[in-house]
Amino acid sequence: MAEEKLPTRDEIELDKVLSALADPHRRQVVLDLMEEPADTERTCTSFGLPISKSTSTFHFRVLRQAGLTYDASYGNRRGVSLRRDDIEARFPGLLDAIAKSR
Amino acid sequence: MAEEKLPTRDEIELDKVLSALADPHRRQVVLDLMEEPADTERTCTSFGLPISKSTSTFHFRVLRQAGLTYDASYGNRRGVSLRRDDIEARFPGLLDAIAKSR
Repeated sequence: MAEEKLPTRDEIELDKVLSALADPHRRQVVLDLMEEPADTERTCTSFGLPISKSTSTFHFRVLRQAGLTYDASYGNRRGVSLRRDDIEARFPGLLDAIAKSR
Repeated sequence: MAEEKLPTRDEIELDKVLSALADPHRRQVVLDLMEEPADTERTCTSFGLPISKSTSTFHFRVLRQAGLTYDASYGNRRGVSLRRDDIEARFPGLLDAIAKSR
């Protein structure tokens, strides 16, 4: 499998971030991660999304490719963390405004 | 043509608002309207979007149905205005955060 190219901070695009956050399951993942201490890693299953594994895989890929999250792989499990500092640097106040709308 | 049912303030959904704002042309319309005095109406053509009339019609419909704008019809012209108070009441700080990201 080719290595996935994720956007650096400066490459994160508002179009993709808003589109990623427009989905309620993806938004839930981001908002749940916002409530954790910085750089917390959670497994994909820990969010309890009521969707199939393949749909879940799709949603986590959208979040990652938009630049909202990082996935770390540890052999048989993965950890998802929020790129909160990157998003805040690029789009100040955006995540907080969305969290307030929860 | 059946009358279009637009969302009331309480019916405005974050999913649809974020999805509407994820498109750069639609976002430009909203950000341009934010720079005008409240309730300013502008014609669809005044935004100078580099797209066809039918694509433009589609984008203005998405904005309207998401609850971001109102369209007023005056016979042979239409006026588009931003529902800024409604959006601010539902999602405080969201439009400002997006405007800062311009």
